Amino acid sequence: MIVLEARDRVAGRNLGGHLKNGVAVEMGGQWIAEGHTEVLGLVGELGLETFASYDDGVPITLFRGQVTRATDLSQLGLTPTAAPEVDRMAGLLAELAETVSLSAPWLTEEAATLDATTFAEWVRSNTTEPEAVAYWQALVRGVFAAEPAELSLLHFLFYVKSNTSLEVLISTTGGAQEQRVVGGTHQISERLAEGLGDVVRLGRRVTRIVQTDTGVHVHADGAEVTARRVIVTVPPALAGRIDYEPALPAQRDALTQQMPMGSVIKTQIAYPKPFWREAGLNGLASNFDDGGLSVTLDNSPHDGSCGVIVGFFEGAEARAVADLTPEQRKDLAIESLVTFFGPEAADPIDYVEQDWMAEEFTRGCYGGRLGAGAWTSFGPALAAPVGRIHWAGAESAEVWNGYMEGAVRSGQRAAAEVLGGLSS
Amino acid sequence: MIVLEARDRVAGRNLGGHLKNGVAVEMGGQWIAEGHTEVLGLVGELGLETFASYDDGVPITLFRGQVTRATDLSQLGLTPTAAPEVDRMAGLLAELAETVSLSAPWLTEEAATLDATTFAEWVRSNTTEPEAVAYWQALVRGVFAAEPAELSLLHFLFYVKSNTSLEVLISTTGGAQEQRVVGGTHQISERLAEGLGDVVRLGRRVTRIVQTDTGVHVHADGAEVTARRVIVTVPPALAGRIDYEPALPAQRDALTQQMPMGSVIKTQIAYPKPFWREAGLNGLASNFDDGGLSVTLDNSPHDGSCGVIVGFFEGAEARAVADLTPEQRKDLAIESLVTFFGPEAADPIDYVEQDWMAEEFTRGCYGGRLGAGAWTSFGPALAAPVGRIHWAGAESAEVWNGYMEGAVRSGQRAAAEVLGGLSS
Repeated sequence: MIVLEARDRVAGRNLGGHLKNGVAVEMGGQWIAEGHTEVLGLVGELGLETFASYDDGVPITLFRGQVTRATDLSQLGLTPTAAPEVDRMAGLLAELAETVSLSAPWLTEEAATLDATTFAEWVRSNTTEPEAVAYWQALVRGVFAAEPAELSLLHFLFYVKSNTSLEVLISTTGGAQEQRVVGGTHQISERLAEGLGDVVRLGRRVTRIVQTDTGVHVHADGAEVTARRVIVTVPPALAGRIDYEPALPAQRDALTQQMPMGSVIKTQIAYPKPFWREAGLNGLASNFDDGGLSVTLDNSPHDGSCGVIVGFFEGAEARAVADLTPEQRKDLAIESLVTFFGPEAADPIDYVEQDWMAEEFTRGCYGGRLGAGAWTSFGPALAAPVGRIHWAGAESAEVWNGYMEGAVRSGQRAAAEVLGGLSS
Repeated sequence: MIVLEARDRVAGRNLGGHLKNGVAVEMGGQWIAEGHTEVLGLVGELGLETFASYDDGVPITLFRGQVTRATDLSQLGLTPTAAPEVDRMAGLLAELAETVSLSAPWLTEEAATLDATTFAEWVRSNTTEPEAVAYWQALVRGVFAAEPAELSLLHFLFYVKSNTSLEVLISTTGGAQEQRVVGGTHQISERLAEGLGDVVRLGRRVTRIVQTDTGVHVHADGAEVTARRVIVTVPPALAGRIDYEPALPAQRDALTQQMPMGSVIKTQIAYPKPFWREAGLNGLASNFDDGGLSVTLDNSPHDGSCGVIVGFFEGAEARAVADLTPEQRKDLAIESLVTFFGPEAADPIDYVEQDWMAEEFTRGCYGGRLGAGAWTSFGPALAAPVGRIHWAGAESAEVWNGYMEGAVRSGQRAAAEVLGGLSS
């Protein structure tokens, strides 16, 4: 086995960073849920440790310039008018999500209708409550780093079911943001790579994959590898940029044309201490308005040596600030934090950021999404092997799609396909 | 100047074909409108001739298995219930299209709303008449080779305005299908290439474009060209597959991730004579149902030596038949023609087809489209130069977008940019 990696590091959408004070901060994927059994297994095997994300206190929301402090954890600080409306809609979505086939979303009973509807349209058809509309926009930004019109209802429902439930997707305790890895998640890939030794070849961007009757030739910058099978692990949007011979089947090629990556800039803002905790806040701030950070969470280190807020510019917000300087984005992020957490937020000790849209070998996070019409037209090509080429990556996972856990499971699935193919 | 062409022929989405009897048929772009002044100018300069597309008689429609013959040319055979409804909606669309900024669609007054709405959603919100809904689906298939949910209302309106009006888009006489070129449109590019001589390098797929302070290096299969400026003329979906150094700005890269090409298989079915003409039919059949050819037109040669129907499998119909054999598609096409034009259609003398989705260097026709949310997020990157790289092609045209005329005009615009850049 040979692993060809375009970057000069492993871990892809996981990336380790540091504050000036030496504290490790995750610049990419960072959270693990209780149900992420394969990732947790790897973490244990590799001698890494997890710790619970900070989640004491209540979250806040910003809506029409007004910060509201939640009294009930599950309501995110929604007003008494909006809360039951959001609950009702969440119930409808949970029922619809139940109907989705995870192994073949295009075969879901009402697939054609669910796929021809954008999530924005579903929201518009189901409520006129402005705060509820804003809630769902904020949720889509937080989960998909995209806007509600940019994904089909079917994609939304698939993703909800794939990741257990809406509640799991947006929760820390008991949810997808529950645990972190001491020192950062990128260590998982680093330690795996150490174990693999020199089969991992860095700085080898794959540019061309040639299949013949007897094998497959993979051309990378300055290297050519011949193998019996190949697993492509980059997201479809990037996989489409590899040159294939013979050319890919039309449906697979078309899929790569319409599964764009989300838009996100991840920031970490550090303070001498996690001052918001003293005010009874858990650090979760949801921005229902346009402008500034879309969402924040407490991302302070395990040892409590300083306070860190992780803040995301997502979807339209990320695109709006993409051309600014880091310094300008820092100012905007601080402005958001002052709004959320008060004047103490005005004086951070550090700010670091990662623009995933600008990363040539990722081109957006958290992952690829399918817009209206795409699942039913091109979905079957998402994971189906093409001759000796197999597809893995978080986008191709049935369960825990979009997460590290989905990526690992998709790798196991692709490995099983390859082993089956090699033995036949 | 050097022209690098990936194929072993010029003309791209224009392609000449022949029936067994020697009659030329266009396997790609074929029609010219009166307003296509630049293309008509080239046709004249190059010594080619145009002739009027056949348009005597009336069109027919198929809806719920029933063929209806139009009494009024403008109504396409719609029932008395559907016709005024379609008219009313066309009026609304014309009014909305008026508001669109062609040079900057994202600055259109209601851009955010128009862009967050799919065309399917607009139809659903504006009628409950089943035949009207089916009409708009057929129209979107015919114009975009896509489904109504796969494009934003803003994209639909931009395209309508860019091509003058809905009526021009769907009309033969007085419309975008008015004229043809004797012998085929591919001759335009062929004769231009002849005039250019050996600066046109065939079989040179561009794989990499490197910009430096002093110039640009273009790497093609087996060739490297150094220049001061480069014009990339492939559609965004394909342009994104070129490797750029430095990497493209995020917005331009994101655009290439979400402007997928349409889905179409073009067929030409030949008969000893154009028998439908005797029945007073002009050959235009619009399929409002699912299954079979989406639309047909009379495509008989100028000299009337035989009868030819051009038929398109478009959008979902194209995807549904993509994995069939040509023989199976031929049977389906004939079945459609028998339904449309009667039993005489059962015995064609020839059938040829072109699957544009499978063409590695086009990957779909008629062109790229923008789904919900894309124009307002990524539109500015559609034609904006990136350093020494300029963008041309039918997708980048303000006027006659999607047509040969738009392609030529975009080339003139890019050439003017380059000349401006070279002199500065």
